[in-house]
Amino acid sequence: MTAVTTLTVRQVTDLIDSHFPQVHAGGKILFVEDIGLRTARVRMTYDSQSVRPGGTISGPAMFKLADFSFYVALLGLQGAAALQAVTTNINLNFLSRPAQRDMVAQVRLLKVGRRLAVGEVALYSVGSPDMVAHATATYAMPPEHMKRTTP
Amino acid sequence: MTAVTTLTVRQVTDLIDSHFPQVHAGGKILFVEDIGLRTARVRMTYDSQSVRPGGTISGPAMFKLADFSFYVALLGLQGAAALQAVTTNINLNFLSRPAQRDMVAQVRLLKVGRRLAVGEVALYSVGSPDMVAHATATYAMPPEHMKRTTP
Amino acid sequence: MTAVTTLTVRQVTDLIDSHFPQVHAGGKILFVEDIGLRTARVRMTYDSQSVRPGGTISGPAMFKLADFSFYVALLGLQGAAALQAVTTNINLNFLSRPAQRDMVAQVRLLKVGRRLAVGEVALYSVGSPDMVAHATATYAMPPEHMKRTTP
Amino acid sequence: MTAVTTLTVRQVTDLIDSHFPQVHAGGKILFVEDIGLRTARVRMTYDSQSVRPGGTISGPAMFKLADFSFYVALLGLQGAAALQAVTTNINLNFLSRPAQRDMVAQVRLLKVGRRLAVGEVALYSVGSPDMVAHATATYAMPPEHMKRTTP
Repeated sequence: MTAVTTLTVRQVTDLIDSHFPQVHAGGKILFVEDIGLRTARVRMTYDSQSVRPGGTISGPAMFKLADFSFYVALLGLQGAAALQAVTTNINLNFLSRPAQRDMVAQVRLLKVGRRLAVGEVALYSVGSPDMVAHATATYAMPPEHMKRTTP
Repeated sequence: MTAVTTLTVRQVTDLIDSHFPQVHAGGKILFVEDIGLRTARVRMTYDSQSVRPGGTISGPAMFKLADFSFYVALLGLQGAAALQAVTTNINLNFLSRPAQRDMVAQVRLLKVGRRLAVGEVALYSVGSPDMVAHATATYAMPPEHMKRTTP
Repeated sequence: MTAVTTLTVRQVTDLIDSHFPQVHAGGKILFVEDIGLRTARVRMTYDSQSVRPGGTISGPAMFKLADFSFYVALLGLQGAAALQAVTTNINLNFLSRPAQRDMVAQVRLLKVGRRLAVGEVALYSVGSPDMVAHATATYAMPPEHMKRTTP
Repeated sequence: MTAVTTLTVRQVTDLIDSHFPQVHAGGKILFVEDIGLRTARVRMTYDSQSVRPGGTISGPAMFKLADFSFYVALLGLQGAAALQAVTTNINLNFLSRPAQRDMVAQVRLLKVGRRLAVGEVALYSVGSPDMVAHATATYAMPPEHMKRTTP
């Protein structure tokens, strides 16, 4: 089982901004709001061209939010050692039409093994109790020799 | 949105036993333990040939437990009106090896619409905190004219 | 079972451009290349900022290609009657790193019922035989009263 | 990439019968019919109690057929080296009601890496062209030190 050290919101944000600045290409709309033990919460602000073709939040934008949020939770748990983790599967169920508002993703990691990590992500429009979409995701963890031990 | 009446454990058990006794073919090992608002808990006892080829609990047995438990939660919420609901998708992630013990499924319905119901099921070995498997499932709800209004 | 009329590439392209121009927001990079009986092929050109943060093709871009291509195949089969179909589930497996080239999606519809359509999408980098990603998708078909009969 | 040696139907059958006889607990109904390069075909005969509670073929039976068939294809490709591979994910779409007949699974491996193998399985009722169910599956490949090199 993995160590249970948990990074702060600031530490995870810094890790991503320095290693994957391209995630914010087109304008920063993804903000890490909370890191817990095997959990994370991320907000996607509703102020960008990229999320609202046609006035609603697009499927690809929700995909990106779910995938990014899962990665945030992994970094929160393992720090730089998880930087090279890669998505192998995402299963997305679209449940209700998103509102034209900020969206929040709540992640819960279900398993973090040496080789695979599995978790779920619930997406909500801020201010509404109905889940907009639900994802389960699997990441392949980096092989031991690829793990960074310093940020 | 559907009505929020909730059947009791006894009512759901009776509905299934009278309409789908074949689910217990080979010996009754599935027991409804709890019905909540859009939730259900079901136990699969570890005493049958059918669940333990090789000494562990088989994938098909876990599939059956997950699928059955989701159906239980639907019946708990909608009663006989949901009897003709059918599984359209199950996505199962296997997380850790099950113990040679009873297994418990905890269901949470995420959306119950007129046409589709979506939910998630967490499977645990009794006495262990680690999730053994996680499923998301989709059921097609019966068309209006097929819904039973009396048990 | 649905009718088996098949629209041409031009007809499907025109339907999308007139009803969902927002899919091309940021620059047109998705091109319908072929429509067959329950099949479609769509190309995503590698010339846009939106697909290549970091020099590779992003997960959200692949999600968009898979989702769009499935929709193209539905329109190819049913024409304007399918315009209001909506994605309910996409399950994406990422298999190999995409090349920095155009990407092609090949769709095969597995079932097109009155309520649900299910199919699979294979994504390739042009010029490479290895599948980059594989998706299965489910769409909810529009209720009868919402179906358009004229483009 | 893995070697492309392909075992025969007889060799795969023998491997399974000697290492996992429990898969046939309750009576042998699963028969390997064909092994190709990254493909396999398996038949589930319709003569057992276990597949037909209520007169139709159960979801768990279809799950078992899909999972088993994928494993057969892996063994066909890699031989005993793949014996310790384990299922990590199965995503099953149920498309049409199975007939009360034998069912055939056709597997296609999409990727076989050092750590993960991904593939798809199509299930048909013998004699009908409509796909009954479609699965995508992921297996975790055994770590190097667990791979058997002799049957």
